[in-house]
Amino acid sequence: MTTLSVTGGHVLLPDLTVTRADVLVDQPTGEILEVSPDLAGEGDETLDASGGLVTPGFVNGHCHVAMTLLRGYADDKPLEDWLQEDIWPAEGELTAEDVRIGAELGVLEMIKSGTTAFADMYFHVPEIAAVVEEAGVRARLGRGVVTVAKDEDAAHEDAEASLEVAAEYDGAADGRISTAFMPHSLTTVGESYLDEYVPQARELGVPIHYHANETAGEVTPIVDDHGVRPLAYAAEKGLLESEDFLAHGVHVDDEEIELLAEAGTSVIHCPASNMKLASGMAPVQRLLEAGVTVGLGTDGAASNNDLSMLDEARDAAMLGKLAAADASAVPADAVAEMLTAGSADALGLETGRLEAGAPADLAVIDLESPHLTPRHDLVSHLAYAAAAADVRHTVCDGQLLMRDRDVLTVEEAAVQDRALEAAEALAARVDG
Amino acid sequence: MTTLSVTGGHVLLPDLTVTRADVLVDQPTGEILEVSPDLAGEGDETLDASGGLVTPGFVNGHCHVAMTLLRGYADDKPLEDWLQEDIWPAEGELTAEDVRIGAELGVLEMIKSGTTAFADMYFHVPEIAAVVEEAGVRARLGRGVVTVAKDEDAAHEDAEASLEVAAEYDGAADGRISTAFMPHSLTTVGESYLDEYVPQARELGVPIHYHANETAGEVTPIVDDHGVRPLAYAAEKGLLESEDFLAHGVHVDDEEIELLAEAGTSVIHCPASNMKLASGMAPVQRLLEAGVTVGLGTDGAASNNDLSMLDEARDAAMLGKLAAADASAVPADAVAEMLTAGSADALGLETGRLEAGAPADLAVIDLESPHLTPRHDLVSHLAYAAAAADVRHTVCDGQLLMRDRDVLTVEEAAVQDRALEAAEALAARVDG
Repeated sequence: MTTLSVTGGHVLLPDLTVTRADVLVDQPTGEILEVSPDLAGEGDETLDASGGLVTPGFVNGHCHVAMTLLRGYADDKPLEDWLQEDIWPAEGELTAEDVRIGAELGVLEMIKSGTTAFADMYFHVPEIAAVVEEAGVRARLGRGVVTVAKDEDAAHEDAEASLEVAAEYDGAADGRISTAFMPHSLTTVGESYLDEYVPQARELGVPIHYHANETAGEVTPIVDDHGVRPLAYAAEKGLLESEDFLAHGVHVDDEEIELLAEAGTSVIHCPASNMKLASGMAPVQRLLEAGVTVGLGTDGAASNNDLSMLDEARDAAMLGKLAAADASAVPADAVAEMLTAGSADALGLETGRLEAGAPADLAVIDLESPHLTPRHDLVSHLAYAAAAADVRHTVCDGQLLMRDRDVLTVEEAAVQDRALEAAEALAARVDG
Repeated sequence: MTTLSVTGGHVLLPDLTVTRADVLVDQPTGEILEVSPDLAGEGDETLDASGGLVTPGFVNGHCHVAMTLLRGYADDKPLEDWLQEDIWPAEGELTAEDVRIGAELGVLEMIKSGTTAFADMYFHVPEIAAVVEEAGVRARLGRGVVTVAKDEDAAHEDAEASLEVAAEYDGAADGRISTAFMPHSLTTVGESYLDEYVPQARELGVPIHYHANETAGEVTPIVDDHGVRPLAYAAEKGLLESEDFLAHGVHVDDEEIELLAEAGTSVIHCPASNMKLASGMAPVQRLLEAGVTVGLGTDGAASNNDLSMLDEARDAAMLGKLAAADASAVPADAVAEMLTAGSADALGLETGRLEAGAPADLAVIDLESPHLTPRHDLVSHLAYAAAAADVRHTVCDGQLLMRDRDVLTVEEAAVQDRALEAAEALAARVDG
């Protein structure tokens, strides 16, 4: 097989309109050759998209994928208690093997929900990279750096390990893996470490990804210590370049929005996590109006509790209206863009738009169900009504990852069994 | 077949814990005979719940079910424009046949997502009642009354029609249908009409259901006209009895919460609609702490855009935390209760709890998928991670409505075809 035609469906175009079209894919290069009607006879192989909507594969802009093992492990707790009493002790017990198993489970869930690329901040990154390579998805991976509450040697080791991983894996898996330097946040990495390592990340040529302005509680100490709000501090420290992307951006004021727009730094909006942890409401409509590139992310499964980007899309539309106190804010087409091109642009990927020359990363959503009937507006359905289980096929880099809900690159039953076992053993270690 | 045993699953018990158990159902009476382990050999027929969670059938406490025909018809508009420019003109064109088709589609979606009962406010109620009867679900139905912007004769006709429907259909479909008197809201029904018709509803012995305190904009005119806030006015007008239930309750102050708690009037929380229309955040945690019975509702599909109560549960957990600025607010077990017993109690139904003697209204949720793995806490999964497509079987009044996702009482393909056609014709009439 060298060409694949995705036939009979409607296609979400880069201008966010929907039209009847087929998509012809060159499998050796993984590129889209053509998007137009009547390509049905053109491919060596055919993927049936009739009754479906062909969309760019969703891009999950901020995740900690191995945290699927902690899905439902500790809910309904204030952020600090949750981290200190549950999440950090559990993460302290995670082995490299656990991270691999959790990543397998998470990537399986992503493929089943139409996600073809994600950004991930965690540890034991080589395990995650191995899963990405085998599963056939795309990812920008990095090792999180925390220096607070660590001795100086351990802190330096952490930062150096993040740079090493970024250097080693950039371009891996035939270019499906790219990397970033990932200081955890502006409050959990000390200033001297930023001064020392940010320039090294720039020399490597990788972007920088970090949590910023997630809670009101992390704004105050930065203002107290540095005399400016977090994103002005980030700019001073060289963390606000056009290739960088930050997660959350909930508590940003107008000046910080302007800083983001001027710098070209992207924001990954994580509405479910922001609600579940009661962090607040990101001003997404204002970010969009200022011209900031906004993508969407699920954050980890422990604060969501799923990795479905269609849930995140619905949440973004809903929460964006509430935040703006305006039902016309963050409309369906803006959500469709964040879900695809917005996240892809934030991560510096060439994906997110179905057009000739672009990577063939796509999902086919089955529209023929009661909850997607009638079909006045397919972009509305994508934003508000489609769900993970409606995804029929998933293609990444020109390769079929899921056909008719049958995942071809990951052994679904075995992965679930391993995850059940690993999660039980983990809970026993933490509690015991 | 006279008895049905639902075997091999875990069961959500009335105390909101989960245990390994089977459920034995007496089909002629539609009642649960027993909930306990090892009933596998007991039933004449068996329903396989292995690998599943058996929950009470979900109760959708506030809906306008025929509005499925307007799903995605007009999104992302401020409430007043949306109603005046899109929804009301479209509703003006809805025929009795359209309402029947929309109700079929909505009830089909409900069965597929585990909902076995709903409260509905609309017009052409006999059509909706016919669908409820045939599909085998349970409903509390009523005709909405609006008197503003109508001449006096039309307003009286509207109120009388609502009473007539309430009288005629109460107890229909072998008791699966009950009714309510349904003044649309405290601002859209004039005071003199409340004075005249509320006592007549009390004589009929039906509860009263209405929209209240949905937007900030409907509080002010009541304070201006009557000198008190809406729920004090409702109490004065006799609309705050223990059998009554109101939808939304977003903008309620502490005194109004106290009034609700004292009166025993229930609130149906509609988080998705409240977000999508930017109405605001209901203080659900405060309502629960005050002892108010809180249920969940989807509202109509035009402001949601689906009728999945599992989406509503997730939204309620998420939004409840944001509203309280506290990640421990509206925890998973509170959500599980709102989804089942809370809504059932609000509607005055005997359902919502799986125990001997209760009506056999239940859903079986398949847990064996990646997004529900691992399984640290099944109540957490119900609140945060389970989705409509995970519902495997649906049983109402002891009868199987869906088995292995195959709906037995509604012709799925035909209903979708009719709905597509009716929605297209409707849009053409409105636009043309």
